[in-house]
Amino acid sequence: MNSYEDLCSLAREISLIQSTASVLGWDQETYMPPKSLDHRARQVAYLSAKAHALATSADFRSLLEKAEPEATATEPTQAANLREWRYELERAARIPTALVAEESEVTSHAKHAWVEARKRSDFTLFAPHLTRVLEIARRKAALWGFKDEPYDALLLGYERGATTSAVASLFAELKPQLATIARKAVEQSAGIPKDLLQGDYPVEKQQQLNREIAESLGFDFEAGRIDTTAHPFCTTLGPGDVRLTTRYDTADFTSSLFGVLHEAGHGLYEQGLPPADFGLPSGTAVSLGIHESQSRLWENHVGRSESFWQKWLPRAAELFPNLQEIAPSDFLKSIHRSEFSFIRVESDEATYDLHILLRFELERRLLNGSLEVAEVPKAWNEAFEGLFGLTPPDDAHGCLQDIHWSMGGLGYFATYTLGNLNAAQLFQEAVSRPEIASGVDRAEYQPLLKWLRQRIHAKGSEQHPADLMRSATGRPTESAPYLRHLRSRFGETLHA
Amino acid sequence: MNSYEDLCSLAREISLIQSTASVLGWDQETYMPPKSLDHRARQVAYLSAKAHALATSADFRSLLEKAEPEATATEPTQAANLREWRYELERAARIPTALVAEESEVTSHAKHAWVEARKRSDFTLFAPHLTRVLEIARRKAALWGFKDEPYDALLLGYERGATTSAVASLFAELKPQLATIARKAVEQSAGIPKDLLQGDYPVEKQQQLNREIAESLGFDFEAGRIDTTAHPFCTTLGPGDVRLTTRYDTADFTSSLFGVLHEAGHGLYEQGLPPADFGLPSGTAVSLGIHESQSRLWENHVGRSESFWQKWLPRAAELFPNLQEIAPSDFLKSIHRSEFSFIRVESDEATYDLHILLRFELERRLLNGSLEVAEVPKAWNEAFEGLFGLTPPDDAHGCLQDIHWSMGGLGYFATYTLGNLNAAQLFQEAVSRPEIASGVDRAEYQPLLKWLRQRIHAKGSEQHPADLMRSATGRPTESAPYLRHLRSRFGETLHA
Repeated sequence: MNSYEDLCSLAREISLIQSTASVLGWDQETYMPPKSLDHRARQVAYLSAKAHALATSADFRSLLEKAEPEATATEPTQAANLREWRYELERAARIPTALVAEESEVTSHAKHAWVEARKRSDFTLFAPHLTRVLEIARRKAALWGFKDEPYDALLLGYERGATTSAVASLFAELKPQLATIARKAVEQSAGIPKDLLQGDYPVEKQQQLNREIAESLGFDFEAGRIDTTAHPFCTTLGPGDVRLTTRYDTADFTSSLFGVLHEAGHGLYEQGLPPADFGLPSGTAVSLGIHESQSRLWENHVGRSESFWQKWLPRAAELFPNLQEIAPSDFLKSIHRSEFSFIRVESDEATYDLHILLRFELERRLLNGSLEVAEVPKAWNEAFEGLFGLTPPDDAHGCLQDIHWSMGGLGYFATYTLGNLNAAQLFQEAVSRPEIASGVDRAEYQPLLKWLRQRIHAKGSEQHPADLMRSATGRPTESAPYLRHLRSRFGETLHA
Repeated sequence: MNSYEDLCSLAREISLIQSTASVLGWDQETYMPPKSLDHRARQVAYLSAKAHALATSADFRSLLEKAEPEATATEPTQAANLREWRYELERAARIPTALVAEESEVTSHAKHAWVEARKRSDFTLFAPHLTRVLEIARRKAALWGFKDEPYDALLLGYERGATTSAVASLFAELKPQLATIARKAVEQSAGIPKDLLQGDYPVEKQQQLNREIAESLGFDFEAGRIDTTAHPFCTTLGPGDVRLTTRYDTADFTSSLFGVLHEAGHGLYEQGLPPADFGLPSGTAVSLGIHESQSRLWENHVGRSESFWQKWLPRAAELFPNLQEIAPSDFLKSIHRSEFSFIRVESDEATYDLHILLRFELERRLLNGSLEVAEVPKAWNEAFEGLFGLTPPDDAHGCLQDIHWSMGGLGYFATYTLGNLNAAQLFQEAVSRPEIASGVDRAEYQPLLKWLRQRIHAKGSEQHPADLMRSATGRPTESAPYLRHLRSRFGETLHA
């Protein structure tokens, strides 16, 4: 066995531990009884520490050093794996263990403080914690190094090859146009009653429909499942084990359905990664911005399209008789209905990205020091007023709404909008092929999935996201396809 | 920190790994999608190897060697933990790694062969595998050492302090009396229609009743749950996490209910172990024979009693209206109905132990060489004829019925009957206290559970099973209380 193969074995060992931690995490969210919380935390911490120790071990480093010069140009997968391992090792090695422990301590307190601060809608309770979180994020960025600004170093943890300035340029281009589209979508929605689809939707029947639809997209239930949690997610427990979750609103079936379409999009990507490379970069999803492109493609480009509902509305109406009275055109108007919301996670397709742009800009300024923590509520509210024409009534509906800062999760909100851009670009490229377009027109998605499998899923992390987009669509991520999609959906007509 | 405390930390680390493997095992039986099987096997094997390596490590041995002379007589828990660790370490250390691997290989093939042999009801397909399994069991017994016969060494793995000759004496005493009781119970059951309780029992309502009953016994659903599997079991995933499973027959609610009572008995024991000692012998159930006493006590002494159904039959009849037509006395006759069955797992309270006695005797002879593998079907059928007055129609209904031999599981069937003996002895001792007896008469079980908690659960593995029985009841395990119970239930009257 050569060093590269030894390295693969060690990486697979690490992934055995990590995927075991994923089982523990899934169980914790789905079925674990409450009194197990402390012991579960100890189990997860133990596995995480073991995986981290192996990934940063002297063994790993020395195998990598031996394998790198042995790599041959004829093995692009091998070269990519070595490149990714080197990158991850250097990133991990630059953060001292003491800083990891300090971050864990700081964020643990910050999470508690955030819960309390949001409950009382009082940012001052959270501010000292955010200051400490930011300080740690800046120290990490400095240790990793960056060319232009600290946000660069954090962003690279989620989106290889991305730069803050490139993202900022894209967002600057999008911002005025998104604001116009959103305003128009909200205006046009004024006449659509909010409660048109309200009815009685038993959970079992929702589960039946969700399952039929997920299967029709290609989600493999022999290698996955759907369970119920407070917050929907998708997690991979092994190469044949991808689990989605959703939650049910018995008065509106579209809530769980679009949740399942979104998570199934993530799940189809995970099920399409090369199973033999599980645990290696070549068998791992490449970035959040590509992952989110898959969830948004199936949720919005497929799941909110007219052709999709031509097939599925009659089936839904069999399960939910109240839908029989609703005209297909009214149904589509309902699921494209748009309104301004203070809360990102409650916002719709036409307004969602404005929330992302706002937070991206504030995070960037917090990290480069041009915005003080104490000024966050004022800056948030002013930016919100500028984008939405509304002022949040309090901090709970403004800068305190999301948990992520309290967890140290800075630098990744940008990937949500990158995901939307990638989704539109991939979908438009795909349907430029007649066989895919005609499948989509009949709500048959095997040709589309096959294309995504070949162009995106099967590639794992072999290419950086921008190169992957270029090889799949001929262009790096850009704004035009997404704006075209939004204009078509929220412009001349209400559905496209 | 002294050596004993270091040793406790190491033992807790091992138990973190083992309890994580238990989560994986639970998930595999309940929710895991089929394509995850290979990866899950790798995860479990990895954790098992890690736990084994730590438990047999030079570190463990040297800490133990330092801690033993430091132990003080004033710390009985400490002394017991050191005693158990020493015992386990010596047992584990005597089995070479190569033999562990060989056993794993042999039993893996033997399991496949057993499935095929049972399907075709052809013992000759399984015989060569049983020969290899036996040969390994004998080698292990020789490595562990034994005074009288190889079965001794195997039995000690399940029942500390037990000897084959003591078990054999108990069983010899029981055998003719059990045979008489069983024959009488079967005769008396002739007039009881088999289908008296047959009806329509929706799964959700069975779950409702099972949960109410398990809660009324004291099972804590904040620290446990009930799921559905093909084969019922109880597993502990942590000090606040004990999970039961059952299966549902929609034509007969008693199948899942008695299953839940049995597993809840195991679960109450696990929930009653000292949580602070989780991972130490003092926080671990002492033996299979004591564990089974808890399951059988709640299943048979509580769950099949008249007072239990005085409370619960009216509630069951609310959920299942067909029960409203059944007289309480007929209901009791039904759940005490007895018949001879070729299959152990389908047998009832009055006939169950005869299956155990039969297998115990054959295993013992196979291990000491007085029975050849080729003679097993003949020996089985003759013994069965002698006990039940019936001859199995084929090997699938005879010596091939149980999977355990194929898994190398020799030496533990005896603990099923020990469990029955212990259950009767503990229950009769408990109800000799007026406050427990009057609780039981009203189907209120807090006083009974409290007594079991103090006398059995809280003790963990501090005492050997025989000493634990002696301290709880004044006597080591004996046959009289169980025979009294069976005679009372299946003798003069059909219910007791």
